[in-house]
Amino acid sequence: MHNRAWGLWTDLYELTMAAAYFVNGVREEATFELFVRALPPQRRFLITAGLQQGLEFLGQVGFTGDDVAFLRRQQVFKHVSPEFFEYLLGFRFTGEVRAMPEGTLAFADEPLIRVTAPIIEAQIVETFLLSTIGFQTMIASKAARVVAAAQGRDVVEFGTRRAHGFEAGIHAARAAYIGGCSGTSNVEAGRRFGIPIFGTLAHSFVMAFDNEMDAFRAFLRVFPDTATLLVDTYNTLDAVESLAHRFGRGVPAVRLDSGELEPLSKQVRRVLDAHGMSETRIFVSGDLNEHRITELLAAGAPIDGFGVGTELATSADAPTLGVVYKLVSIGGHGRIKLSEDKATYPHAKQVWRHVAYDGDLVTRADETAPGDDYQPLLEQVMTHGEPTGITPSLEAARRRAAEELRRLPAAAQYPVKFSRQLERDRMELARETHKQRAAVG
Amino acid sequence: MHNRAWGLWTDLYELTMAAAYFVNGVREEATFELFVRALPPQRRFLITAGLQQGLEFLGQVGFTGDDVAFLRRQQVFKHVSPEFFEYLLGFRFTGEVRAMPEGTLAFADEPLIRVTAPIIEAQIVETFLLSTIGFQTMIASKAARVVAAAQGRDVVEFGTRRAHGFEAGIHAARAAYIGGCSGTSNVEAGRRFGIPIFGTLAHSFVMAFDNEMDAFRAFLRVFPDTATLLVDTYNTLDAVESLAHRFGRGVPAVRLDSGELEPLSKQVRRVLDAHGMSETRIFVSGDLNEHRITELLAAGAPIDGFGVGTELATSADAPTLGVVYKLVSIGGHGRIKLSEDKATYPHAKQVWRHVAYDGDLVTRADETAPGDDYQPLLEQVMTHGEPTGITPSLEAARRRAAEELRRLPAAAQYPVKFSRQLERDRMELARETHKQRAAVG
Repeated sequence: MHNRAWGLWTDLYELTMAAAYFVNGVREEATFELFVRALPPQRRFLITAGLQQGLEFLGQVGFTGDDVAFLRRQQVFKHVSPEFFEYLLGFRFTGEVRAMPEGTLAFADEPLIRVTAPIIEAQIVETFLLSTIGFQTMIASKAARVVAAAQGRDVVEFGTRRAHGFEAGIHAARAAYIGGCSGTSNVEAGRRFGIPIFGTLAHSFVMAFDNEMDAFRAFLRVFPDTATLLVDTYNTLDAVESLAHRFGRGVPAVRLDSGELEPLSKQVRRVLDAHGMSETRIFVSGDLNEHRITELLAAGAPIDGFGVGTELATSADAPTLGVVYKLVSIGGHGRIKLSEDKATYPHAKQVWRHVAYDGDLVTRADETAPGDDYQPLLEQVMTHGEPTGITPSLEAARRRAAEELRRLPAAAQYPVKFSRQLERDRMELARETHKQRAAVG
Repeated sequence: MHNRAWGLWTDLYELTMAAAYFVNGVREEATFELFVRALPPQRRFLITAGLQQGLEFLGQVGFTGDDVAFLRRQQVFKHVSPEFFEYLLGFRFTGEVRAMPEGTLAFADEPLIRVTAPIIEAQIVETFLLSTIGFQTMIASKAARVVAAAQGRDVVEFGTRRAHGFEAGIHAARAAYIGGCSGTSNVEAGRRFGIPIFGTLAHSFVMAFDNEMDAFRAFLRVFPDTATLLVDTYNTLDAVESLAHRFGRGVPAVRLDSGELEPLSKQVRRVLDAHGMSETRIFVSGDLNEHRITELLAAGAPIDGFGVGTELATSADAPTLGVVYKLVSIGGHGRIKLSEDKATYPHAKQVWRHVAYDGDLVTRADETAPGDDYQPLLEQVMTHGEPTGITPSLEAARRRAAEELRRLPAAAQYPVKFSRQLERDRMELARETHKQRAAVG
């Protein structure tokens, strides 16, 4: 057995609802689906990520004595019977989970994860699943765009310092790797997930020495094969000229981090080549994103690799992803929400992808396959609260993402349709709900 | 002694630089300052936050045997002598830290934190300090804007589900509380930091019952004093009418989460008042931010409290803050960077605030006070790697922020000036640096 923990890693309303379900004897099995209501206007696809952390959470979530004592001290729970807190002490997640494997191409309204469990269990895990899967999916999707712009050149994720806390940096590094980055600057991410780590020196190193060439000499002495010398602390072209005179082919790479990167990279390349340093690579960084990279390469900038930080680790142009986690059935009965701007489809679903990537079809989970040329995307990753062990490795997720992206058609919008059965179910349920469920005075 | 940890919670280049400093015998004391180069266009002030987590990190940072073994396995370190890894095993932070207390109003170019330590120590801690203090400061600053817009009404931070991972949610809750929020939905943040926690029920709870009134009855039974009933699952006004008929004054509050909040809140208020439910509060949520709140209140929407999620926990309109950590002196000698777009001021500094909030003056730390009517903002929070214990509690930080914001003049830009001494130092050093330090072929 695992040590239980993380029970308080949730929103309070999950626990107040849990108490109300418990006290009122609501214990039915429910199915929730996690999906994105609409893609940000800056995105036309998602790459799923974060499932691994979601499953680790589900495998361990539980309440310690301290957790329960904390809850009992809260005024809000003062009318809740002691049996509920006893229940929490024995709480574990016993449900079934189906999910798209990490690295899967996904679109708006498609369930990325489907959770079926006694309703209290399925409810309590909502907040963690949303935050983890929403965040990593957002970053993997951004990374895929940046990597595509780099046209085969290395993109290294450099953004921890501007991430939403160091932990966000660790998981941004992981998601960016799934999305196609070559590695990260974040050492803990490298250790925890086996992601290649990169980084050489900052301006402070250059400034710590009496002059720039002393700094470079000191660094090359220790890192002769891997040093990427940052040449823009004082004057970039002067620095490169000096480097060439002093160290010639002994310089593995240089990095430009400021100034006009396009003309500068061309000038630097010329200086390097003029000194027979054609093997010396040029690496650039500094407020990069997919648009800047596209411009630089379109202008013929001779750049061998990119360090992308802030924009990537925060998905700065689309820093939120509208992930939701919706009840779609309880006790075998479909459920929908009718709020004008937030309507949903009922019932547990499956997502089918056409083998030629012509489009996806969302059906009820109990519908038969729409045809031999469709493959189901939601796989069973947890049964009775235990992982089925079929989740791919991080490397496999990264390969999957690359393969999916290679096959994604260039058309602006990838078609996602709902089965006739689901459309009928939704309409019927809408009528019925208006009649029966909604409040009548 | 503490258990050492967190040594790998850094960017790789901090460790490659550390190795190069070590091997080359560079051990001088250095001073780094953490500041924001420019405020985002959407912000005119910052509220500092995250220092507490920064100090906890500094107090514990060190390398376990496993950490060091991981580093030794990396190809990049293959030429580094074993003495460096021995050094890491004994590493701790022994430096001095001055900082603005949490909850301080701050502006571009003002050091929020100043670290003085042997250069390797000061360098390795860079990434964590930037990510933690940058993130929390960004969120506290956003929260202050949202809270100001609410004109004294409660603002509860609801954003964990859309935060950049759950840990980001925990720290966003903390920072939002410093910025003036009344509490958070994040239970772990409540437990860890003592922040008031809020939350009642979601749409899924309503949908789990056969009809809406059954759901409300079930919830009120368990939470008769605190229930905030979410009334927009099917039809808001119908729900409120029914609630009024069935439960009357027994309903503490209702929540609207969709639709046109301004007309809807007015209609709901009328229905409630018509049933003598003037004590029933109206709470709203759903894609709120400071601008929406301002509009709603300007239009006279009778709203008693706001739940603000996504926009607040991600600072969605300005989701990155350009925090940097710059070497300003080493071995007693000032240092500056000359890169065109990224120039800095040399030497350890102090920030002085005029008692009438007329403006701030940044001086060298060794300059005398500019006058009796100025107060220094950077306080000594760590000496020889040990906390001085003068950091304020979370409650004190929140009060400080409120007091500072109350005194902030309405003028668009708060003036920050640098002392004549600093301007002279910078110019002199720029000349000298161009002459001596920069590369010459």
